[in-house]
Amino acid sequence: MLSAGSFRGGWETGVRRPGAVVTMADDIAELDEALRRQADTVRRLKQEKASPEEVAEQVAKLLELKAQLGTDEGKHKFVLKTPKGTRDYSPKQMAIREKVFNIIIGTFKRHGAEVIDTPVFELKETLTGKYGEDSKLIYDLKDQGGELLSLRYDLTVPFARYLAMNKITNIKRYHIAKVYRRDNPAMTRGRYREFYQCDFDIAGQFDPMIPDAECLKIVHEILSGLQIGDFLIKVNDRRILDGMFAVCGVPDSKFRTICSTVDKLDKATWEDVKNEMVGEKGLLPEAADRIGEYVQLHGGLGLIEQLLQDPKLSQNKLAREGLGDMKLLFEYLTLFGIADKVSGGGILTQISFDLSLARGLDYYTGVIYEAILLQPQNAHKEEPVGVGSVAGGGRYDGLVGMFDPKGRKVPCVGVSIGIERIFSIMEQKVEASEEKIRTTETQVLVAAAQKKLLEERLKLISELWDSGIKAEMLYKKNPKLLNQLQYCEDNGIPLVAIVGEQELKDGVVKLRVVATREEVDVRRENLIEEIKRRTCHP
Amino acid sequence: MLSAGSFRGGWETGVRRPGAVVTMADDIAELDEALRRQADTVRRLKQEKASPEEVAEQVAKLLELKAQLGTDEGKHKFVLKTPKGTRDYSPKQMAIREKVFNIIIGTFKRHGAEVIDTPVFELKETLTGKYGEDSKLIYDLKDQGGELLSLRYDLTVPFARYLAMNKITNIKRYHIAKVYRRDNPAMTRGRYREFYQCDFDIAGQFDPMIPDAECLKIVHEILSGLQIGDFLIKVNDRRILDGMFAVCGVPDSKFRTICSTVDKLDKATWEDVKNEMVGEKGLLPEAADRIGEYVQLHGGLGLIEQLLQDPKLSQNKLAREGLGDMKLLFEYLTLFGIADKVSGGGILTQISFDLSLARGLDYYTGVIYEAILLQPQNAHKEEPVGVGSVAGGGRYDGLVGMFDPKGRKVPCVGVSIGIERIFSIMEQKVEASEEKIRTTETQVLVAAAQKKLLEERLKLISELWDSGIKAEMLYKKNPKLLNQLQYCEDNGIPLVAIVGEQELKDGVVKLRVVATREEVDVRRENLIEEIKRRTCHP
Repeated sequence: MLSAGSFRGGWETGVRRPGAVVTMADDIAELDEALRRQADTVRRLKQEKASPEEVAEQVAKLLELKAQLGTDEGKHKFVLKTPKGTRDYSPKQMAIREKVFNIIIGTFKRHGAEVIDTPVFELKETLTGKYGEDSKLIYDLKDQGGELLSLRYDLTVPFARYLAMNKITNIKRYHIAKVYRRDNPAMTRGRYREFYQCDFDIAGQFDPMIPDAECLKIVHEILSGLQIGDFLIKVNDRRILDGMFAVCGVPDSKFRTICSTVDKLDKATWEDVKNEMVGEKGLLPEAADRIGEYVQLHGGLGLIEQLLQDPKLSQNKLAREGLGDMKLLFEYLTLFGIADKVSGGGILTQISFDLSLARGLDYYTGVIYEAILLQPQNAHKEEPVGVGSVAGGGRYDGLVGMFDPKGRKVPCVGVSIGIERIFSIMEQKVEASEEKIRTTETQVLVAAAQKKLLEERLKLISELWDSGIKAEMLYKKNPKLLNQLQYCEDNGIPLVAIVGEQELKDGVVKLRVVATREEVDVRRENLIEEIKRRTCHP
Repeated sequence: MLSAGSFRGGWETGVRRPGAVVTMADDIAELDEALRRQADTVRRLKQEKASPEEVAEQVAKLLELKAQLGTDEGKHKFVLKTPKGTRDYSPKQMAIREKVFNIIIGTFKRHGAEVIDTPVFELKETLTGKYGEDSKLIYDLKDQGGELLSLRYDLTVPFARYLAMNKITNIKRYHIAKVYRRDNPAMTRGRYREFYQCDFDIAGQFDPMIPDAECLKIVHEILSGLQIGDFLIKVNDRRILDGMFAVCGVPDSKFRTICSTVDKLDKATWEDVKNEMVGEKGLLPEAADRIGEYVQLHGGLGLIEQLLQDPKLSQNKLAREGLGDMKLLFEYLTLFGIADKVSGGGILTQISFDLSLARGLDYYTGVIYEAILLQPQNAHKEEPVGVGSVAGGGRYDGLVGMFDPKGRKVPCVGVSIGIERIFSIMEQKVEASEEKIRTTETQVLVAAAQKKLLEERLKLISELWDSGIKAEMLYKKNPKLLNQLQYCEDNGIPLVAIVGEQELKDGVVKLRVVATREEVDVRRENLIEEIKRRTCHP
């Protein structure tokens, strides 16, 4: 077993030393982490001048871990894996991803959005104080001299920074990029530490609820277009929540923290939520009970009218504003034809005003929304895929002002599509359907019927490429015809252009249709046109 | 002036405190860096128990820097910028980027490539020992508990890791993604710390030089397709270099370091390069002179033949192998029709066997190549754009084996397109041509001729979206017709669908062609078809 040092050294001099230890097991990475944590503990205890017994106990644990890893100082196994919570995308997964992105980008473009991009990391300070309790999940870069940097946590804060920095007061843009959260990954349910967000936002001072309604229309179009089953979009407004907290007797200073607790209602029972409000957050039980009555309400225009008449809530200015705008929003959604959907026997509510929706992030100031899938899509599996949020967003009118040197506000509303969960569902759908997904777009394989035709193949494929035809050939001097045909079968290539001695003499190429095995001689000068004709359908 | 602490605190409670200090100047960031470096120096001196005078001197410098920044402990300005060496992409830049990517991806797909993606960071160990002297440019993540991670430095090492991890012995794939290098950025010349690479690689055991030739064909197709002027692709082989070093009397142990020095020939004079070889690297002057004779050679098949007859070089096994394959490569390139190009009066060499080409990275084992642009493209500017490498690559047969638990080798050859420099050139071309680039694809604006038609506009635009038409409207209840028409002019939207009271009564919509101001009444039920007819050209 070589040490890591010699492993590297071997490489640097360009000579591969055999036997360097590479391991693939994930548990070794876990052990490695435990080992490093334990080493830290020992170091800390020594620094803190802890008692010799205490240090000895921790050192013993450290040695035990080292023994488990089968290593000692300077020697350890190299683990062949991607970092925790991340994954590679195979060609097949990329084909699915491309399909999903095309639907999403198509929708964004249909709504006239421009596109921007920002760096994967920001100055640490840019992210500081924007995410409340979640800030602990931010990845920091090591201080290697220079600026202190962090990986972006979402696309919204970089967008706000971009607007302020470029003094933009008016834009409709989308941004599709990876974001980073040091969360506990649950990868089988599509939760990763590196994941894509697909954001669409409208920035600018406009008449109420028109851009907000368009964001919901976009969510509706995307989720319908993806055909991943029925969904429900829950809508609420931070002003209604704040008004509700006020009339229920929550002190101003506890609005945000109680809001965070309400946000847990989709995963926890009311009892647990109430206990957290009263026990941890010190709310009076009566106030919690009053909240409990409100947060079980959900509905449409009827509920909004009812709450506008609510003797307590209607007295609160913020709640009145929020409810007024909510009414307007539902009117616009009705004009867009997406408030309800006729399905089978009855009417399926697709957008619901739901007082339990709170959203975790601090920066929302008005309407908020979240889309969930209503049923698991993998009926073929025992374990249903976690049905959860696949899109969310809202209005954040204060965030850009945070970055502007003069505090100028730029009102914004947007939505983020949670693409990883959608990928997981699509992948399972593809697996279940046994549908064969092509990972290339190759139209024709240039093949040889006999030996010694490499030069002819190279000449022909070069002509095809130069005419824009997607073509491949086997990288062998003298491949067998059977292997060439098999390659087409394996890769879904529809046509084979076969070069043979007789064909060369006759000035033709044999064109074979893989699916039907039909063969036809095509004059060399007509070949490109013929291939285009046979493969032109999108 | 508020401290950073209160700035954050204000945000976390959801209340924006006015007057938080945000600054945009870059020099403040520089100062900030200097301040932090100086603070480190003071801290180190104190730890090292330096003399009080020495400490006092450095503390004085620290205080001076603080005074320049106008800050003291706990108070500092927030700088509104992207991290050093990075940039945002505006919608206009993204439109150019999309155009460039489409040409590149189109070429990769034409050659039957699949696509993969890997995480933006890797285990630190995965990158260790792969980049020689450049390893110091790797961005590390902060140790926040868990694995030690680094941002990827290129796409080749993650690709090799991917192949080994998934036991793939045979794949042709492309990968377009950002990579990270803590280099000194020269952003005006398209050099960034965060930048895109577009990689195409062929992995697998094949007959000699067939995939290698395809990589060069791809570079040729991409650079021709981008229309950024004449280019030259230099080709060499690590085995020829190593053979040359051997016959010139370079000791084996100095092959790689002398290779690094030769690599500087494109920027430095032979005198400087020789001085480094003899002075820094301890080579005998006679050996350096012998190298000097070889590295000025460049040519085509003729030069290869000549060197195959070279009394010294032909005695070296590695050089013979390399020259034999180089001959094969040039034969294939001739079949591909890319070895030379007829241009104006004479023949322009587009691919040149060049003994001075060395390439920096350690992992190459066979053919290597690099493409450079031959002339500046911004004739309208005083300062010519830095003409440099826009693509490079080669064969690396040992890298995958480094990661494989059993050391199994997977021969690979590939090319990386240096897209940032190409972006810079394309951007300057667009600026120079005053060509107006559209940043959206909107086909029609839904406008109102009178007030109080918001509901009608919402209904109509919803119909258009649902039919797949790219449509926008102004987010105002009662926008002026003139403003709506102006919006179309500004954004290059070709059509306006105007809703008016009379039109509603008549069951028609007025369709206006922005360019010609021609207006025509279209029956509501024919509108979608009419818009599609008028905008169907790609």
